[in-house]
Amino acid sequence: MEHTTGSFTLPGEAGYEDLTLQMAKKWGADVIRDSDGTHLSDAITKAGYGIYSTICIIRADLDWARANMDKLQQNFLMSEPVTAESDTVTIDLLSGFFRQQFIINKTDNPKEFWQVFDRTSGEEVPCDQWTFDPEAETVTATGITPWHIYTVNFLAVRIWEEISMYNHITNNWGDRPHLMAVDPRYPETQKHMLDWLDNWCRQNPDTTVVRFTSMFYNFAWFWSDDPKNRDVFSDWGSYAMTTTPLALREFAKEKGWKMTSEDFVNAGEYTSTHNVPSERYLAWMDFINRFVVSFGRKLVDLVHSYGKKAYVFYDDSWIGVEPYGRRFPEFGFDGLIKCVFNGFEARLCAGADVKVHELRFHPYLFPTGLVGEPTFAPGGNPTLEASQYWVNVRRALLREPVDRIGLGGYLHLVQDFPDFCDYMAKVADEFRMLKKFNQSCRPYTIPGKVVVLHSWGKLRSWICSGHLHEHPEVDLTNINESMSGLPIHVEFISFDDLVRDGLPEGTSVVINAGAAGSAWSGGRHWEDSEVIARLTAFVAQGGGLIGVNEPSAVSRNGRFFQMAEVFGVDRDLATKKCLRKYHFTVEKNSWILQDTPDLPASMKEVDGVYLKAPDVKVLAAAADGTPLVTARAFGKGRALYLSSFRTGLEASRMLLRAILWASHNEGGMDRYICSNYRTECAYYGDIAKLVVINDTGDPQDTEITTDSGKVSVHLKPFETVIQ
Amino acid sequence: MEHTTGSFTLPGEAGYEDLTLQMAKKWGADVIRDSDGTHLSDAITKAGYGIYSTICIIRADLDWARANMDKLQQNFLMSEPVTAESDTVTIDLLSGFFRQQFIINKTDNPKEFWQVFDRTSGEEVPCDQWTFDPEAETVTATGITPWHIYTVNFLAVRIWEEISMYNHITNNWGDRPHLMAVDPRYPETQKHMLDWLDNWCRQNPDTTVVRFTSMFYNFAWFWSDDPKNRDVFSDWGSYAMTTTPLALREFAKEKGWKMTSEDFVNAGEYTSTHNVPSERYLAWMDFINRFVVSFGRKLVDLVHSYGKKAYVFYDDSWIGVEPYGRRFPEFGFDGLIKCVFNGFEARLCAGADVKVHELRFHPYLFPTGLVGEPTFAPGGNPTLEASQYWVNVRRALLREPVDRIGLGGYLHLVQDFPDFCDYMAKVADEFRMLKKFNQSCRPYTIPGKVVVLHSWGKLRSWICSGHLHEHPEVDLTNINESMSGLPIHVEFISFDDLVRDGLPEGTSVVINAGAAGSAWSGGRHWEDSEVIARLTAFVAQGGGLIGVNEPSAVSRNGRFFQMAEVFGVDRDLATKKCLRKYHFTVEKNSWILQDTPDLPASMKEVDGVYLKAPDVKVLAAAADGTPLVTARAFGKGRALYLSSFRTGLEASRMLLRAILWASHNEGGMDRYICSNYRTECAYYGDIAKLVVINDTGDPQDTEITTDSGKVSVHLKPFETVIQ
Repeated sequence: MEHTTGSFTLPGEAGYEDLTLQMAKKWGADVIRDSDGTHLSDAITKAGYGIYSTICIIRADLDWARANMDKLQQNFLMSEPVTAESDTVTIDLLSGFFRQQFIINKTDNPKEFWQVFDRTSGEEVPCDQWTFDPEAETVTATGITPWHIYTVNFLAVRIWEEISMYNHITNNWGDRPHLMAVDPRYPETQKHMLDWLDNWCRQNPDTTVVRFTSMFYNFAWFWSDDPKNRDVFSDWGSYAMTTTPLALREFAKEKGWKMTSEDFVNAGEYTSTHNVPSERYLAWMDFINRFVVSFGRKLVDLVHSYGKKAYVFYDDSWIGVEPYGRRFPEFGFDGLIKCVFNGFEARLCAGADVKVHELRFHPYLFPTGLVGEPTFAPGGNPTLEASQYWVNVRRALLREPVDRIGLGGYLHLVQDFPDFCDYMAKVADEFRMLKKFNQSCRPYTIPGKVVVLHSWGKLRSWICSGHLHEHPEVDLTNINESMSGLPIHVEFISFDDLVRDGLPEGTSVVINAGAAGSAWSGGRHWEDSEVIARLTAFVAQGGGLIGVNEPSAVSRNGRFFQMAEVFGVDRDLATKKCLRKYHFTVEKNSWILQDTPDLPASMKEVDGVYLKAPDVKVLAAAADGTPLVTARAFGKGRALYLSSFRTGLEASRMLLRAILWASHNEGGMDRYICSNYRTECAYYGDIAKLVVINDTGDPQDTEITTDSGKVSVHLKPFETVIQ
Repeated sequence: MEHTTGSFTLPGEAGYEDLTLQMAKKWGADVIRDSDGTHLSDAITKAGYGIYSTICIIRADLDWARANMDKLQQNFLMSEPVTAESDTVTIDLLSGFFRQQFIINKTDNPKEFWQVFDRTSGEEVPCDQWTFDPEAETVTATGITPWHIYTVNFLAVRIWEEISMYNHITNNWGDRPHLMAVDPRYPETQKHMLDWLDNWCRQNPDTTVVRFTSMFYNFAWFWSDDPKNRDVFSDWGSYAMTTTPLALREFAKEKGWKMTSEDFVNAGEYTSTHNVPSERYLAWMDFINRFVVSFGRKLVDLVHSYGKKAYVFYDDSWIGVEPYGRRFPEFGFDGLIKCVFNGFEARLCAGADVKVHELRFHPYLFPTGLVGEPTFAPGGNPTLEASQYWVNVRRALLREPVDRIGLGGYLHLVQDFPDFCDYMAKVADEFRMLKKFNQSCRPYTIPGKVVVLHSWGKLRSWICSGHLHEHPEVDLTNINESMSGLPIHVEFISFDDLVRDGLPEGTSVVINAGAAGSAWSGGRHWEDSEVIARLTAFVAQGGGLIGVNEPSAVSRNGRFFQMAEVFGVDRDLATKKCLRKYHFTVEKNSWILQDTPDLPASMKEVDGVYLKAPDVKVLAAAADGTPLVTARAFGKGRALYLSSFRTGLEASRMLLRAILWASHNEGGMDRYICSNYRTECAYYGDIAKLVVINDTGDPQDTEITTDSGKVSVHLKPFETVIQ
């Protein structure tokens, strides 16, 4: 492959100037960046490269934060449940929480924001029945019911910014200071931040791009005092940590109604992105998002006024920064940077409405990885890691291109890993070649459109919440990963979208996938008859429906799957023991499982799934007879049920076939699809280039039927072949 | 063992008089009975034995039924769901149902009883929007919503009594007439039945006991027209087949409010005994039960007036005859006969408030068994079957005695199975010996009381609904079976009992076991804070709680298990992905699993069960880390969670230890408990007899610590040893 240059961001490191410039050349970098814990010297910044500088503005000035503790960020916590042994109960508010992260808000009147609940009956304890003792840090409720459970929702001030806290504790940083996150909603904070940034821009003339490590509010991360059980609540998309009294009051003033503590606490479940959001919480998110964008815009404008560009790294303090939020373009960002382990993360970045899309690859140049395993350290194999991540991401880049890639961390660590340096050079060249193809034209895509229906819709396109390895059981994350590299059009819509606008033009298949009650399955949205009727009509009139795990699930009207009449499959939650469940024999050798007959053996069964119609075809069943894969004609359309979905090469192939079958497009398999599912291809028609990739570490042979006949390709491990 | 006589009911058979009298002697029979399909000749009835004669009064007179088709029994059916393709929908009412069982009630005004439902929205279609076409047998609804699903609840008349139907079709009886079940609620029917019975009594002077094959209403059994999928709805305890228009009208008149079709149809789930009953349905059951008892009493009185006794065989048409119903004694029955496969069925019989308790043993003297397998036919092994059932039942009879045992069927079939004849002689002698011991005194029982808490309470003592082999997944049936042979006191109470009266005096352990929403777990009853508070107080003050599968489950107040704060265990239904779940290590060698360390390997895990408190001990976990057995101290009490319960020798032993642990009575293991859990014992203190039984087909050695020291016993396969 030709060695090319550009579109590559290198992490530089002062003290290693020669290495920095040498690697910049080897990897074809056009930009050098600093990282958390490194800085760039003049020898680097003056070498003619673009310079990215990292800023995390809410924790940037610890002295100011210390002097303005009343402007720190706050959030609601629910105290640990306490069983009352008489008609009085005293509750230690911070019991179990990490006291280095949280202190109680003792400034504002607790009766304005706090709530005490009887968690046995679900009723709130009236304000006049409880008192807060600021010295003991307890709430005492009287006149309550013995043997009921009580909790207090209270406002806590966070005195340790979570990323600082995590790195500090994980790396044993001893007496290094604890950074603190200030809330920019306070006018004084805004003024200070603007001044600080103005000053920073003036002092960093070589910086061409200010790389915001997101904006203001971290994803939710509540810690406990038990080192072995740190996370009390941890969610990548939750707005739980945005609730200062000022914000709460401004919201109430604007809307005429108040968010309560319980809107955020939800009886201790808080506001997880995996759960169906309430209308009230959505209003709050919109309120916060509007603020984040409007003040963020001021910071971006300031950066622009210095002739610098503003990129945002979408991680950590990313609340309100969602790239598929409707206000995202209003930030005025010049670029979006996303760290990627997987293809779906690349697609999130690639599809955002922003000029420059950049991926920060893994592994990070750190001695150890995510769970403390060695990476750039003895015993580590960063080349293998990089190749696995590249295989994940490459197939997504065949479908939707990005503009840049890069790395992060301590560059000096690569010195002991020359094979990694060689490998990254190859990846960078490969990336630039694919980018060139994609600039010429878009690759062949199967006609029609796959629409994913869930509670969040477009806002949570491609990413449900967090990385695949964190919640590998979330079916939709797995489906997104498989789809990220398939030659299909994908769109994400919400139930509100469906009811308001119907399905998007050209929809061929709708996917609804997830556990009952999750945001991905849809929970309460399936209580809306219009949702059911729209989809029923769509399938009856020829559309395709794919349901996974507990699609359309809510117990209502004698069904659990609200689309059960279409799937011909429902789940018995033990209330249908005495009702008919149709017998069946498994249809072997189905078209859908043709390439991957052994895949169902690894599928997780959903206990109690049964046939409620005689004309459902069962393509696979668990050992105990529970259907795993079913297919059914309904009216002019087709409906498929899968009990679970875990991504992988076999699963991606099954999904492709499922989509084609549901679209009445079995012929789609005969055009620009690799015969060997361990390989994939993209065809760029205008330049007549066929790119074939090997998704495995073994050599592969594959055949592709093109418009001008069959092509046979032999691929080395992980290889990309151009024809 | 001494050969004794009495307490044994033999099925005689005309044409085999010698055999009948010979077997009567061999088995020590004192009573001879007829069976369905056999009759007794004078040579038998005059031989000096008591004579039982079988009567099923609702199907006894086919001619009268044919002449009174307007008095046949009726029930509500829900038509198969139909998706509307426009604003009009036409529904074929009987589509899919077995037309030899059901015809549509065309006599009464459909608008009085029927309902049409939009099953997408759950709303009823107003009466003026639908019409019934009696010729086409369809209902047409207009002004409805396209793509919604519609069903009709309608009254069907049953033209084939279900037991007749089942036997007829199973045995290919060709043109033998279809018997029909009349409803005794009609005064004319009552008069006819009394006349018929009076006449029968007069014509059968040798009969000493009239054996009612239950009373009037069969358990619910709706058939479809698909021979491969016969059962549409089949429930052993449901009152679904009791709803004639007359009954519905009388109920409305008495109560001032009407039962609707939907009270019985429940969106197609009907009224399964496994589900939590509604208050309205309970009112209906009470209404029917009162009638069954009051008219049943008239029949019993009539039998008594002829100097005969009246026994009831509790099977088939047993609705309203429940032996633990509060009115059961009012029938005036002299005896209760229960067929038994298992110990819990023996306990149901043994504990009923009636003079004579009789068990009808299995196998039935039929060529084939329950699912068509050979019994008294080539390839059958009735002796092995009998020994297995006897082993199941014997351990229950050690705890609570019955008065009689017997067999049923065609006696001539035993001629080819002399080993069966010998074995039954041994069983009969063994039974009579145990009965004698039990007449002397009650065996040793561990102090304290195990209270089973479920929706039905005492009414469904010992039997949930049906036999173990039909729904082996029902945890409580399995628990009942294990408990049936343990040396413990057991009582069954409902949630209403708990709230009204508290726990019974002497309660040491409460068990709540079952799937969420089932009658056994309790469903909506757990929305009652008083239930939670009562049990919380009970455990906090020293009581024991055992929860199985999804105990106390209803999604509410942030918990799924409402007793989660006590168990320290809850189930995450995917809404708690981002919340803390305590890490744990499994405690090996726990006291509870001491005898049965391998048992948890066969336990079914409940997906998503997790620790919500740090002080819970996990005694066993599934391969994926989900807890299977947990134990926790709560206040002064103890709480145990088991993910599932399937009966067996190991499981029974674990349950015994669980009960003792929860009762703070670990010492209970050291008194009259066999060291080898494959053996069990009962100690009759007043007569100083220790009975030791071998529950297996292998020889066993066991030790028992008695009040006067350790005893070692060697037992042959299935043996009963007296010391």
